[in-house]
Amino acid sequence: MIENATPSTPSSSRSELRDLVRDQLRMLLDQNNLEGAKALLVPVQPVDIAEAIEGLPESMQAIAFRLLSKAEAIEVYEHLDISVQQALIQEFKRQEVIDIVDKMSPDDRARLFDELPAKVVRQMLAELSPKERQATALLLGYEEDTAGRIMTPEYISLKENSTVGETLERIRSLAKASELVYYLYVTDNSRYLTGIISLRDLVISPTDLPLSEIVTRDIVSVHTDTDQEEVARTIQRYDLLALPVVDKEQRLVGVVTVDDVIDILEQEATEDIYALGGVQSDGDKYFRTSLFAVARKRVFWLLILLVTNTFTSAIIQQGGQSLEAVTGEAIAIAAFVPLLTGTGGNIGAQSSTVVIRGLNTDEIRDLGPRQVVLREALAGLLLGSSLGVMAMLWAHFLMGQNWFVAIAVGSSLIAIALLASVAGSALPFVFRALDRDPALMSAPFITTAVDVLGVLIYFNIARAVFTL
Amino acid sequence: MIENATPSTPSSSRSELRDLVRDQLRMLLDQNNLEGAKALLVPVQPVDIAEAIEGLPESMQAIAFRLLSKAEAIEVYEHLDISVQQALIQEFKRQEVIDIVDKMSPDDRARLFDELPAKVVRQMLAELSPKERQATALLLGYEEDTAGRIMTPEYISLKENSTVGETLERIRSLAKASELVYYLYVTDNSRYLTGIISLRDLVISPTDLPLSEIVTRDIVSVHTDTDQEEVARTIQRYDLLALPVVDKEQRLVGVVTVDDVIDILEQEATEDIYALGGVQSDGDKYFRTSLFAVARKRVFWLLILLVTNTFTSAIIQQGGQSLEAVTGEAIAIAAFVPLLTGTGGNIGAQSSTVVIRGLNTDEIRDLGPRQVVLREALAGLLLGSSLGVMAMLWAHFLMGQNWFVAIAVGSSLIAIALLASVAGSALPFVFRALDRDPALMSAPFITTAVDVLGVLIYFNIARAVFTL
Repeated sequence: MIENATPSTPSSSRSELRDLVRDQLRMLLDQNNLEGAKALLVPVQPVDIAEAIEGLPESMQAIAFRLLSKAEAIEVYEHLDISVQQALIQEFKRQEVIDIVDKMSPDDRARLFDELPAKVVRQMLAELSPKERQATALLLGYEEDTAGRIMTPEYISLKENSTVGETLERIRSLAKASELVYYLYVTDNSRYLTGIISLRDLVISPTDLPLSEIVTRDIVSVHTDTDQEEVARTIQRYDLLALPVVDKEQRLVGVVTVDDVIDILEQEATEDIYALGGVQSDGDKYFRTSLFAVARKRVFWLLILLVTNTFTSAIIQQGGQSLEAVTGEAIAIAAFVPLLTGTGGNIGAQSSTVVIRGLNTDEIRDLGPRQVVLREALAGLLLGSSLGVMAMLWAHFLMGQNWFVAIAVGSSLIAIALLASVAGSALPFVFRALDRDPALMSAPFITTAVDVLGVLIYFNIARAVFTL
Repeated sequence: MIENATPSTPSSSRSELRDLVRDQLRMLLDQNNLEGAKALLVPVQPVDIAEAIEGLPESMQAIAFRLLSKAEAIEVYEHLDISVQQALIQEFKRQEVIDIVDKMSPDDRARLFDELPAKVVRQMLAELSPKERQATALLLGYEEDTAGRIMTPEYISLKENSTVGETLERIRSLAKASELVYYLYVTDNSRYLTGIISLRDLVISPTDLPLSEIVTRDIVSVHTDTDQEEVARTIQRYDLLALPVVDKEQRLVGVVTVDDVIDILEQEATEDIYALGGVQSDGDKYFRTSLFAVARKRVFWLLILLVTNTFTSAIIQQGGQSLEAVTGEAIAIAAFVPLLTGTGGNIGAQSSTVVIRGLNTDEIRDLGPRQVVLREALAGLLLGSSLGVMAMLWAHFLMGQNWFVAIAVGSSLIAIALLASVAGSALPFVFRALDRDPALMSAPFITTAVDVLGVLIYFNIARAVFTL
């Protein structure tokens, strides 16, 4: 069926194709039909081969991997999950490993070395070609999640005193295509970055034009220690395909490319979403970690919330007894606690969601905290008033409560909505001011904080209404 | 201070620079110093100029915009917010508008036309150059959020029977650099896409090599009606800079580039996050919409949850009275309701968060619903048991409850945790099966559903424990 695929395969049928490749590969390997398996993989993209290999039982992974040509093997290896990369290394002969690792791109290699035992890394570093060793050692020297770590130190740099034609000749004479990203960097004798030339401009310009005519002087760059999220946002903002990385002395040391950036933005979004959902995230893939690791990621917030909620329980118990003495309707009053805290929690979760996302995508950079919190407070008041009136009428007419209870419910809802929206919008700013991720101020936390305060407010208002 | 900026400006100081530009621009315009303002903007990137203009009072926006050179004006205009684009159109003379709109890239122009009144669009379309009119009309014919809508119909296509050198000559002779993306497309006489050549391969190959030697046959493409999120995922998966778009007859009609894709992925992540936080999202920017629009976006879920929560209240009120008759401790029992429903809600929110994100990023494509729900159920049981034992001991020893209440609380927590994790993980799959966005099955909804069922479970267990 693979042979019938048209050259232009639309992506919708691609995912079926991927499943097919995985199943067929497994079948062929089960039958020990290595030639068939080899033929099957020829027209398949490296990333899809990597996924097919990941789907195989461990005993078959190395066999399947050995079917690939050397050039293809390196590309596929770069796309494999770190855990499979590690497993394969143990299967391979020493020289096979060195051959592959030597030809990986330096940023992918650095990521792999991060996960390997230090002893293995030292051995491998020693056997890499001097140039690759230097490139990797350079990257490993930078902090994780910085521009220095995700950049590739391979790029083409030029001097300015040549023509378009000469430059094209020079590029052609350089052996390794992988070093050519879509910009060329102009440096002076001290490796200071002085200009950028896009490959596009180079190609469309007359060959006798001096480079200085097409060079861009207004350069956007980042430092080696710039956080990877900021690197991503910069590439996104300026619609770049690659971003130069300079060291403290403003010398060009590497380039970050757009494909790495997409994965970073996606990973950061997942971290935000997990934090909002009260799941700790450390960049691991949730569905590939063990059940106990999963439980550990989740139990932290649950415990904090459990402890906080015992305060709510204590307040209801003690407040309830004294309310019973005053009103004789403690249970009727307590029955509205979930409605009030639930609504308050939801309003707080909404406010914190929009503020956290706004902070992390830079959308509210221009608005000060005061403006944002004020706006959320007004929204909370608006929502609380309309819902409060509704809840009051509901309590009296549909649930048959007397007006005292209904008024206590309605007015508490307004106060709680205001509290929740202020807390939900202000706490992320507080966290940011303390230099922590605003997303840590997650919805579950705000929900629970609103529970405790909400019950206190409600019981006090109820007591006041009944003793009027 | 602008003059002191080094050619290579790291991005951390860039954001200060942007604020500075905005403030200085405003000051210069206030002083009516147009020459100074013009000089200020010369070294600034178009996207930063756009942001500075957006920050000006409306009366100044058109004045600032007129300071730009024609080429720059088009780039800046493309980066402006739709609302500012619309406002500027009303300020401009007819010919000025046509000049700018005619030179915008077709996909940006289509986005602008979407927001303008149909009458204005018809007038503008009529005055565009025939080629641009055709390109725009083409894009406007496709559904929103599809590949057809976000592609640019401008690309370079080649026939295969030429050499690398001839092709480079041909590219150089084409006037418009904007049409050159980083791949060249090879088509046959019926416009079928038969191969792709990367500009990189073209540049590094010997000039006398035939194109057929460097063409890639295994093409990844999408259809015009492919959803934009799938387009983005495809570009991400295969690390592409651009993706060809074909029509139903497999003919090449356009190209989607990576810079559009980053914005799409970001927007989709924001939509997921908003849905999880119970905020309706329609792609508008939350912090730029009016307070009433904001309230409208939020009140929908709040109302649904309010109604659901009244059931919880009714159950507590009626169940509480009958529990009082059986146990004489209705308030002590009711005091634990927030703790139980809160923990259950949080566990459900965690499960739905990881499943929804997993579905939307394709991470759990390989796992069936049954596997995922089973795994979450086990996690829920594990979490519920440990928290349940803790809550039971807490209730008895720290809060002085008798063992009946403590046992009812502990065992209910286990049951509720199981229920919450199953509901939280299964409902997103149900929504997907109904062809709705799994993120609609948001955390607030699950929280509230768990509230109602959780109270029912708890009261029944409590009654059973007390009547043992």
